Amino acid sequence: MHHSRLCAVLIDCKTADVDEAARFWASALGRPVNAGHRMSRGNYRMLETPPDEPVVEIQRVEHESRVHIDIETDDIPAEVQRLEQLGAVVVSRLKRWVVMQAPTGQRFCVVRVQRPGYPKNANRWT
Amino acid sequence: MHHSRLCAVLIDCKTADVDEAARFWASALGRPVNAGHRMSRGNYRMLETPPDEPVVEIQRVEHESRVHIDIETDDIPAEVQRLEQLGAVVVSRLKRWVVMQAPTGQRFCVVRVQRPGYPKNANRWT
Repeated sequence: MHHSRLCAVLIDCKTADVDEAARFWASALGRPVNAGHRMSRGNYRMLETPPDEPVVEIQRVEHESRVHIDIETDDIPAEVQRLEQLGAVVVSRLKRWVVMQAPTGQRFCVVRVQRPGYPKNANRWT
Repeated sequence: MHHSRLCAVLIDCKTADVDEAARFWASALGRPVNAGHRMSRGNYRMLETPPDEPVVEIQRVEHESRVHIDIETDDIPAEVQRLEQLGAVVVSRLKRWVVMQAPTGQRFCVVRVQRPGYPKNANRWT
């Protein structure tokens, strides 16, 4: 038995300045940059998250700008297998997460648990 | 004075069968298709939304598949003006919503209020 749910909206920005990108999205969404968050480093900036909502984070990328979603889970291999059975395919397995592609074409990531309130508000898969 | 906030994650699918696309995402995210929702029609299928979370909806599109976000507001012209001042530009003004592009390149929409709990949990702009 494992759990999963929509964890985060990643705003992938092809930019030289991830802080400038984060400032725009922080102002646009009214979610201030959470500079003190342990994951606000390198190419990532976390925005503050209202209770019970998915995380929004800004990522500096080399590919074209886009938006992708992350699914969090307490069992990445089991969740990847479940999603494969639904028709998604693995694009790449990294050390801490797996990049997958949906049958409808979008890429998304399967990541470790990140949002508060997990697993009470997550889906339970047997 | 007006309000706005992140409203929805739109999963834009280049597909002939929006129902098949919606079934995949419903299973992947554990959010069943809400076929009875007034907005589940034409090219759109709404997924069930946990309390206080943004809506996830599946849209059939002609362009390449991607993900975009919607910002909801009780004053579309005021919100568009606020976002323009932050550096976003208007791509097209439709009857009920406005398509904008962020300085970081992603397109997003400014829409009328759709999520429950508005405006209590929204950002207030003066």
